[in-house]
Amino acid sequence: MELKEIGERGAIKVMAELYGSVNLDDCATVDAGDEFFLITTDMVNKKTHFPEGATPYQMGWFVVAINLSDIAAKGGIPVGITLSLGLPANTDVDFIKEFSMGADKCAKKFGTEIIGGDTKEAESLTICGTAIGKVKKDMFMPRRGCRPGDIVCVTGKLGMAGAALRALETGDDKFLDELLMINPRVGEGRAAASAKGVTASMDISDGLAYSLYQLMEINGTGFSINKGSIPVHELAEIVGGENAIEFALYHGGDYELLFAVSPTRFEDVKNEVGKTGCKLTRIGEVTEEKRVVIIEDGEEKVMEKRGYEHFLSRGKTL
Amino acid sequence: MELKEIGERGAIKVMAELYGSVNLDDCATVDAGDEFFLITTDMVNKKTHFPEGATPYQMGWFVVAINLSDIAAKGGIPVGITLSLGLPANTDVDFIKEFSMGADKCAKKFGTEIIGGDTKEAESLTICGTAIGKVKKDMFMPRRGCRPGDIVCVTGKLGMAGAALRALETGDDKFLDELLMINPRVGEGRAAASAKGVTASMDISDGLAYSLYQLMEINGTGFSINKGSIPVHELAEIVGGENAIEFALYHGGDYELLFAVSPTRFEDVKNEVGKTGCKLTRIGEVTEEKRVVIIEDGEEKVMEKRGYEHFLSRGKTL
Repeated sequence: MELKEIGERGAIKVMAELYGSVNLDDCATVDAGDEFFLITTDMVNKKTHFPEGATPYQMGWFVVAINLSDIAAKGGIPVGITLSLGLPANTDVDFIKEFSMGADKCAKKFGTEIIGGDTKEAESLTICGTAIGKVKKDMFMPRRGCRPGDIVCVTGKLGMAGAALRALETGDDKFLDELLMINPRVGEGRAAASAKGVTASMDISDGLAYSLYQLMEINGTGFSINKGSIPVHELAEIVGGENAIEFALYHGGDYELLFAVSPTRFEDVKNEVGKTGCKLTRIGEVTEEKRVVIIEDGEEKVMEKRGYEHFLSRGKTL
Repeated sequence: MELKEIGERGAIKVMAELYGSVNLDDCATVDAGDEFFLITTDMVNKKTHFPEGATPYQMGWFVVAINLSDIAAKGGIPVGITLSLGLPANTDVDFIKEFSMGADKCAKKFGTEIIGGDTKEAESLTICGTAIGKVKKDMFMPRRGCRPGDIVCVTGKLGMAGAALRALETGDDKFLDELLMINPRVGEGRAAASAKGVTASMDISDGLAYSLYQLMEINGTGFSINKGSIPVHELAEIVGGENAIEFALYHGGDYELLFAVSPTRFEDVKNEVGKTGCKLTRIGEVTEEKRVVIIEDGEEKVMEKRGYEHFLSRGKTL
């Protein structure tokens, strides 16, 4: 059987079963007294991750940002980033200078720095980022822990990245920044964690629908989402028109945070996140029955389980 | 200017200058009270790192081992490994199973485990390993710190990997294990660190000569090595005959540890390392004058500054 038949998550499952020590959360944790050290790693490839026209600066920023997003989802403080670059031998030195400037700027914007790395010869550009963070154990926000009745909410607005990618595919290249200059929700994650009450947390880099299905599997609960409550990004409205919601539900790349929160703690969590300047929007609730539904005009439908997954055709329903 | 003109270390230098926060040691360090957390990352590529015939199991073992070698060089205890795999979509699932088994076995042999990772679609197999370790601050063995008069010594025997690669290049494929099933000197590094007295430490994955030149740059000291004292591996003798020393000096891939040790502490360090079953061999001393020399029959010659470096032609003298 080939990887394209089981997809990226299928591959990760095969490995996680063999290792027996992978927690399937956004970050791995290492015990450090009253804290956890958080470790997360993401690999990106020029051909499969960066659209034509992406600058080295944008690529450097992007790799750092997507790793910081995983630290943010756990309520962590970033403490360092390592970057490994696989580069063709004819790569221009200016490429790595600009790439490094983008990476450095993103790290510093979110309070951390590049502390190490590696460069190796490769056939095509491949970049592997690893972010290290830390969080007090009582502030750690795991993927697993939500209960029926908990409120489901998201930071910011959804659908921008999907809409930007669609615009790029149709030849409009002015949205590269929207797609690549991600602002990971580091401050927002810290604020939510400090308010205590988040029972499950992850970033929605694979899309909202896919993320809800992942939380369903991990928690053994279901989710009921109100279609009208989903905060859809303006760019999704412009590019998608009446189908804007498609970008918000089924396209990855937004790097917003998805939380389940105890009902009694929701207002506090919302207020704390609000202090960072980011709106936390209630979009539904955790349910007993293990399925993900979307409600529109009082009518309940099962949400499609699709999103972007590597190795599989784009948007394939699993 | 292209990368092939400045080489891997030239590229790392460009980036380190931009970041300003990279320590150029085997591992990055993160402050954690009376300990350092150690982070190291290594990227390998099927085409540039693995000879024809290498099995997925050997590849998995190798990637974990070379990362643990950096932790070992700092006196660290490994606490976890993450692995990111860039794989072509037509990769067989059995490949990742066997790869993972090799990685898992190596991690467990050296007291740690795989705690996370990522898989992504890529044009050719690219693997990025990151190892996390910890070490009490007073046991950390940096690259920088040696003084003229310190004793220079190495663990084990040198030249096996270079000889195995040469044998493979000439069509003899029975030495893949020698090249890939590395045993990082984790216990030996801990033993040396516990004896206190190591003033500079690194692994010699880039070859002994290259490593000495790196220590020269970092410490501003020189090194005087006795050719006859270098412990040359049997395989290097078999493959290289009277040129066996070439493999010990100028070929990378051995993953032994190179130490400078205070003269008053050398016997203790040697004894502690000896308890692990590994011989520590004195091969020379740290000198005032900033150059690396090799002594044979009382005659002193400047050691060639060459070894394997990515992006450059193999064996190119810099």
